[in-house]
Amino acid sequence: MRNGNSTESGVNPNVSVDCVIFGFDGEKLKVLLIDRGQIIEDEDEKSYALPGNLIHNDENLDEAAGRVLNELTGLHDIYLEQFGSFGDPNRLTKEEDSLWLKSIRAQPDARVITVAYYSLIRADQFELHASSFAKEAFWHDIEALPNLGFDHREIIDSALKELKFKSKYQPLGFELLPEKFTLGQLQKLYEAILNTELDKRNFRRKILKMSFLVPLKEKQIGVPHKPARYFTFDKEKYQNYKSNDFYFTL
Amino acid sequence: MRNGNSTESGVNPNVSVDCVIFGFDGEKLKVLLIDRGQIIEDEDEKSYALPGNLIHNDENLDEAAGRVLNELTGLHDIYLEQFGSFGDPNRLTKEEDSLWLKSIRAQPDARVITVAYYSLIRADQFELHASSFAKEAFWHDIEALPNLGFDHREIIDSALKELKFKSKYQPLGFELLPEKFTLGQLQKLYEAILNTELDKRNFRRKILKMSFLVPLKEKQIGVPHKPARYFTFDKEKYQNYKSNDFYFTL
Repeated sequence: MRNGNSTESGVNPNVSVDCVIFGFDGEKLKVLLIDRGQIIEDEDEKSYALPGNLIHNDENLDEAAGRVLNELTGLHDIYLEQFGSFGDPNRLTKEEDSLWLKSIRAQPDARVITVAYYSLIRADQFELHASSFAKEAFWHDIEALPNLGFDHREIIDSALKELKFKSKYQPLGFELLPEKFTLGQLQKLYEAILNTELDKRNFRRKILKMSFLVPLKEKQIGVPHKPARYFTFDKEKYQNYKSNDFYFTL
Repeated sequence: MRNGNSTESGVNPNVSVDCVIFGFDGEKLKVLLIDRGQIIEDEDEKSYALPGNLIHNDENLDEAAGRVLNELTGLHDIYLEQFGSFGDPNRLTKEEDSLWLKSIRAQPDARVITVAYYSLIRADQFELHASSFAKEAFWHDIEALPNLGFDHREIIDSALKELKFKSKYQPLGFELLPEKFTLGQLQKLYEAILNTELDKRNFRRKILKMSFLVPLKEKQIGVPHKPARYFTFDKEKYQNYKSNDFYFTL
């Protein structure tokens, strides 16, 4: 039998959480998907979705999001930010989704409203371990996404919009770049998020206004081009900047 | 008998919507509250809350928010923006709240997760008509709020934070000021939202960078001080600016 909710008590049949975990690997933006292990006729076809599940009645929404993400993907202690709830009455009624729910839920026909969370982490610094109903947890390029269950494509689009918006007004990168990095690496991060090429000169002019960017004396060595200077983040200034809702404009 | 949900079918017992309607009256920021008409021992004491109620199973979340707001306050066709969901397992368990739920709900002990919406409108240009379980709908100063049911104080604080954040990055005011207005009036609006005095010179320098602000030839007449110039919004530019997620910084 699948390890689902069918036999669990204390599960709220009407409310779930879903997690959009974006991952940056130094080059590209990815999103964390699970193979929900659906038995479908064409065995080559897989059934993908965001990590998500019903909430328990004794946990709050943030706790539910952390637990569900951990149960399905092995990730833990990830900062998750709530960005929206999705409640179209028909969001679960596609045939494939409906069959899957019947295999896993005690009340497969219940209407479920989902509260969605997102995060942005290094794609290559966390180990993934799929369990529960997830057969696999893996990173997928944000472009050319496969067919996804439920309204998960819409949820990813919405999270991406939020991430782009936030990246324009709040600093990011501290957790996503090595201890010392070049402005070229920082630009790559912004380009991956905004999905657009940025003008190098403009980018540098604006980004260097951020007082938490500290130039180091050290430069790259052994590179075939003119060596670039390394920078680092002043952690204290960076945290102040973030928590005070200061902003800059790109 | 109260006009509640006890006899209604098709109501989802676990999900509600709540509406934080901010109102600007030209001077101050207010929030729309209802008197939920609770019978309490001290008859002088009233029982206030945000307009909110359970969702129907055949409507999406946005529709539910519009319907509930209309049913309780008479407001209709208000643009509502979802900003967060609140799901502490104990959010309904205060004694007063629990008693009220027993008088109005078919499943008063069900855990309810609420999806919260906000809006900012003119406080003096909409007629209010309380009905359903609301005995009264009225504007209250955002400062010195009375005791509120459930976690509604927290929901208002969260909406206010969102409004302040958005006001720094997106233009507002078009719907809240007269057709022609002075920069002093516009500054008052920002001061009411940010709950702080702004430096006049700085404010003007920054606000005039917004290309949708159009100076008119006309000035105030019959005022005891130096007459101020009137401005108006270029509606088309304003809408473009909003929909393109352009931004300015205050």
